[in-house]
Amino acid sequence: MLRPTQSETGKDRDRIVNLSDGVFAIAITLLVLDIRVPNLPENDVASQLPGALLSPWPKYLGYILSFVGISAFWTIHHSIFRHIRSYDRTLLYLNFLFLMVVAFLPFPTALLGEYGDHQLPVVIYAATLALGRLLLTAIHWHSMRNDRLLDEPQDPAVMRFYLIRGLTIAAIFLLSIVISFFSASLAIVMWCALLLADAIVLYRRSH
Amino acid sequence: MLRPTQSETGKDRDRIVNLSDGVFAIAITLLVLDIRVPNLPENDVASQLPGALLSPWPKYLGYILSFVGISAFWTIHHSIFRHIRSYDRTLLYLNFLFLMVVAFLPFPTALLGEYGDHQLPVVIYAATLALGRLLLTAIHWHSMRNDRLLDEPQDPAVMRFYLIRGLTIAAIFLLSIVISFFSASLAIVMWCALLLADAIVLYRRSH
Amino acid sequence: MLRPTQSETGKDRDRIVNLSDGVFAIAITLLVLDIRVPNLPENDVASQLPGALLSPWPKYLGYILSFVGISAFWTIHHSIFRHIRSYDRTLLYLNFLFLMVVAFLPFPTALLGEYGDHQLPVVIYAATLALGRLLLTAIHWHSMRNDRLLDEPQDPAVMRFYLIRGLTIAAIFLLSIVISFFSASLAIVMWCALLLADAIVLYRRSH
Amino acid sequence: MLRPTQSETGKDRDRIVNLSDGVFAIAITLLVLDIRVPNLPENDVASQLPGALLSPWPKYLGYILSFVGISAFWTIHHSIFRHIRSYDRTLLYLNFLFLMVVAFLPFPTALLGEYGDHQLPVVIYAATLALGRLLLTAIHWHSMRNDRLLDEPQDPAVMRFYLIRGLTIAAIFLLSIVISFFSASLAIVMWCALLLADAIVLYRRSH
Repeated sequence: MLRPTQSETGKDRDRIVNLSDGVFAIAITLLVLDIRVPNLPENDVASQLPGALLSPWPKYLGYILSFVGISAFWTIHHSIFRHIRSYDRTLLYLNFLFLMVVAFLPFPTALLGEYGDHQLPVVIYAATLALGRLLLTAIHWHSMRNDRLLDEPQDPAVMRFYLIRGLTIAAIFLLSIVISFFSASLAIVMWCALLLADAIVLYRRSH
Repeated sequence: MLRPTQSETGKDRDRIVNLSDGVFAIAITLLVLDIRVPNLPENDVASQLPGALLSPWPKYLGYILSFVGISAFWTIHHSIFRHIRSYDRTLLYLNFLFLMVVAFLPFPTALLGEYGDHQLPVVIYAATLALGRLLLTAIHWHSMRNDRLLDEPQDPAVMRFYLIRGLTIAAIFLLSIVISFFSASLAIVMWCALLLADAIVLYRRSH
Repeated sequence: MLRPTQSETGKDRDRIVNLSDGVFAIAITLLVLDIRVPNLPENDVASQLPGALLSPWPKYLGYILSFVGISAFWTIHHSIFRHIRSYDRTLLYLNFLFLMVVAFLPFPTALLGEYGDHQLPVVIYAATLALGRLLLTAIHWHSMRNDRLLDEPQDPAVMRFYLIRGLTIAAIFLLSIVISFFSASLAIVMWCALLLADAIVLYRRSH
Repeated sequence: MLRPTQSETGKDRDRIVNLSDGVFAIAITLLVLDIRVPNLPENDVASQLPGALLSPWPKYLGYILSFVGISAFWTIHHSIFRHIRSYDRTLLYLNFLFLMVVAFLPFPTALLGEYGDHQLPVVIYAATLALGRLLLTAIHWHSMRNDRLLDEPQDPAVMRFYLIRGLTIAAIFLLSIVISFFSASLAIVMWCALLLADAIVLYRRSH
């Protein structure tokens, strides 16, 4: 019987990681293409350039927000894959779905930068980040339940911590969709608080 | 006599793989640049944004289709190169031709997203995917026929399975060109079914 | 007690380096997208193309300047990370902040290429390069003060040389902001002289 | 005395190669962004799309030409660096200059695709390729003259072959500038013949 994928569960998870890092690096760097140089007549540059640079401030906010969001995705992806020794098809497919969300993020970011005071872009952005987080948690969950994918069995307490953290953060992003029905700005403030809180929690755990 | 390429058949196939992964990662991430933020007057955003986001749905479909198509290319490329230990000029040239097709794919995707209800973009898209599949199969075929390129001789049954699979899928893409003369949509549905079926077959083989 | 990050201070700093190199490579290559092909009516191409290619010379200058600036960032990043064996959260966050500056650089470059004879773009560009340099120096400072991050303790004299060099160069970029109040061109000439002087100093130290 | 660069001549040339591969992969993939989807009114798509896709054929030619040109650069860069064990500042600076030319190539390509029947774009394109080839030959020459950069001394006959080949090809590109004064098309045909001949020569040497 043919079992070509038998050997695919070897130790070459490196190419998956490399491809993922390529997608992370490009998505994070393409974000800046959405910040455009204003087009002003030569005589008005001196007087109008400061205003023309400040008025699209939601685009700068979107740049920082998505940069931090993708950085957080990368950090989690990194801490998941550093324990993974091999992979199976499920892991491969879940990772591609996750990368599809990461590569898609520049679009919701651009939408938010253009129409951030409206509800729909806020909903789309929150849903994209929540979906990315759920897929990462699914990758984590799948890898932890299959010991042969890991270099050593995981501590169940650590497993539970990451699982709860992933689901909680996805849930808060989904909750922000409800909040956006009342105020789009409040939902955005909520994301910033969330990303900041998560970064601080991880920082303190390491000290 | 000079034989500078003698030593090139060493074990440094890694840079070819890295370059290929770079092209895969970039092509897969550039796809999103084709989904543009609609340009609406401020007063009409609330009422028209939902429609303006939904109407270019062929672009979203094209994004997903090409993402899955490139992912499938990557997965096959990965399973071919994991057995390759060294390379010769033929392998190098075939791989560059294949990368040229991968890097070109964002254009047929954009064409399909804009004019997907017409026949010509469907033909160009199907021909691009078929050509990519044929080049991958040629890379596979060439590497399997030259034992010195592989780390160990391949099982002839596995060889035959992959060869038939590659040619079959390329043939189905070419067949969809014939079908596009009757219905462009039917050809697109056919690709989706094909990519799904192939993913399922590979998934089940690994269990 | 849970200490998942304990093991994160292992030897896998490689993915941070790979992600950083991806961002460097993309930022450096996106710069060219800002140099646009002029749009001329067919009859005027022969007579007007030379002028249309020469008139946006500040864009070529910006391309070279930012290419050299990012190359200098890469060279310093490289010489810092070659001594780093592991990482902690602080290093990770500082590196992401630094990458955010690198990935942002194409925007100030485009602004400078369009309005380089005005003061504001010069200020923004100088501030971006100074910030990047300060973050690199902070990464260096942090890694040198934590012996467990390094593969071997650093010579204090070397530490002091790099620290002073980083702060001096950042200070000169900030000084150029003051100079830009008198002359935007003089500030730009100052950057070129600075990057050249730094390259020569490093070159001579290695001989 | 401080000699921080002493240790930089260690074996970590890998990051230079990785950065270079990133630039190669991105430059090669950005080329497709220059091929634009035509903008046609819905009623005229069926009748005008074939013509609108065929008329910018110089862009397709430019895509293939630059793809082959960058592939050739990569192949030579690869065969140079596979013998390099460490690096010095000269090698680093030469490599950055070379990467600046590679990253710049999408612009001459776009120019050629738009105004390929005029002389100036042909001159700029030929000069860019010749400059890239000269820089590669300089990298090769420098590395071969410094035995400590190589893992083993090179055969002088091989050295001479590559040096002559590099200079000859650069000279032929410069010669095509002279020819472009008589016919732009003839110069382009000359490049195609040259790239093809070089690929065949290398192919035959390896058999």
